[in-house]
Amino acid sequence: MKLDKISDAVIRRLPLYMRVLDDIARKGSIQLVSSYELGDKAGVSPALVRKDLAWFGEFGKQGVGYEVDYLRMELRRILNLDREHKVVLVGAGSLGTALARYNIKRYNTDDDFNLNIIGLFDNDPQKIGKNYDGIEIRSISEITQFVKENKVKMAIITVPVESAQEVALKLIDGGVGAILNFAPVKLDLPENVHVLTADLTLEFKRLAYYLDDE
Amino acid sequence: MKLDKISDAVIRRLPLYMRVLDDIARKGSIQLVSSYELGDKAGVSPALVRKDLAWFGEFGKQGVGYEVDYLRMELRRILNLDREHKVVLVGAGSLGTALARYNIKRYNTDDDFNLNIIGLFDNDPQKIGKNYDGIEIRSISEITQFVKENKVKMAIITVPVESAQEVALKLIDGGVGAILNFAPVKLDLPENVHVLTADLTLEFKRLAYYLDDE
Repeated sequence: MKLDKISDAVIRRLPLYMRVLDDIARKGSIQLVSSYELGDKAGVSPALVRKDLAWFGEFGKQGVGYEVDYLRMELRRILNLDREHKVVLVGAGSLGTALARYNIKRYNTDDDFNLNIIGLFDNDPQKIGKNYDGIEIRSISEITQFVKENKVKMAIITVPVESAQEVALKLIDGGVGAILNFAPVKLDLPENVHVLTADLTLEFKRLAYYLDDE
Repeated sequence: MKLDKISDAVIRRLPLYMRVLDDIARKGSIQLVSSYELGDKAGVSPALVRKDLAWFGEFGKQGVGYEVDYLRMELRRILNLDREHKVVLVGAGSLGTALARYNIKRYNTDDDFNLNIIGLFDNDPQKIGKNYDGIEIRSISEITQFVKENKVKMAIITVPVESAQEVALKLIDGGVGAILNFAPVKLDLPENVHVLTADLTLEFKRLAYYLDDE
């Protein structure tokens, strides 16, 4: 684990910058981007863009801006996206399988996408042993051993609220250090484990704001 | 639409504050929260918490903090979550149906959840006419009329990249003003339409950062 001197809030914004840079790169013609444009498209102030990036080095030139391709590459390196990560997904329900399909497809078609789902787990005997897009669904009881043997460090949890905590502990036992949790519950885990709770409804809540006077 | 004087970045943080407050309220015993605690749990600085909330009024008392229930109620009002919003979902694929199921369930069981999916749309003749958790799947060709007649202002798009732009224009034609887009493409729409592009991989990208030295 890294020393925690750079705050989570900074790290949270880096993928947003990456997305903006990816959009710009896709258009192909623009080679430089200002902190103003980057901030505008990412929804943060230009000053904050400069401050965030300054944690990691000198990427921009004053009055000129940032080189798009160089900054993309650097952000990929900083976020450890320049190498493959093995991921397991626990909970083969409708959200879980949709996420699995989406990610497996991305992994197979997008050179920039390095998250490789190598294991699916569920508790339902009806599902265990079945194949999903080439990946066998295994019993959750096997999960600790599987992640240990395959050196998996990342996991996605889409099980119901009641079993999320137990599943997380099994994953950590096997060496997982980062969890993306879709169960709407706050997990109580050791401090060195990084957990993100993904709540799709946050997005809806933001959108509703803009519907005010209609 | 509101005057755009409050930046999107501020609005983006309000649901995060709400989530922290909801977590606190669920525990039941704590009635006051400081900007420090609120910021810590939401991943922003205490100063920014105070600044964000100050846009909307005087909610806290210096040296005392914010009253949890009062601030929750106020944020619900500010984000227009104190009334129901009708929503349509376009694209009844695996992600779309997972989202629909998740939201329909939330709407039916959670008093605080006011996003009501009233229509599902797809282009696939195999799907059109079928029922999904009590909602009929309709043809995308009917969408403009449907949203107009039902005064729907919000939509979720989970169609493939190729058709996302066309679908968005049909929705806007019918009066939709806010779109949550899951198609990984930037939509080119009139400025008064609010679009959020939800990219689940942003979360993964953040998590990968913490896997550094392992």
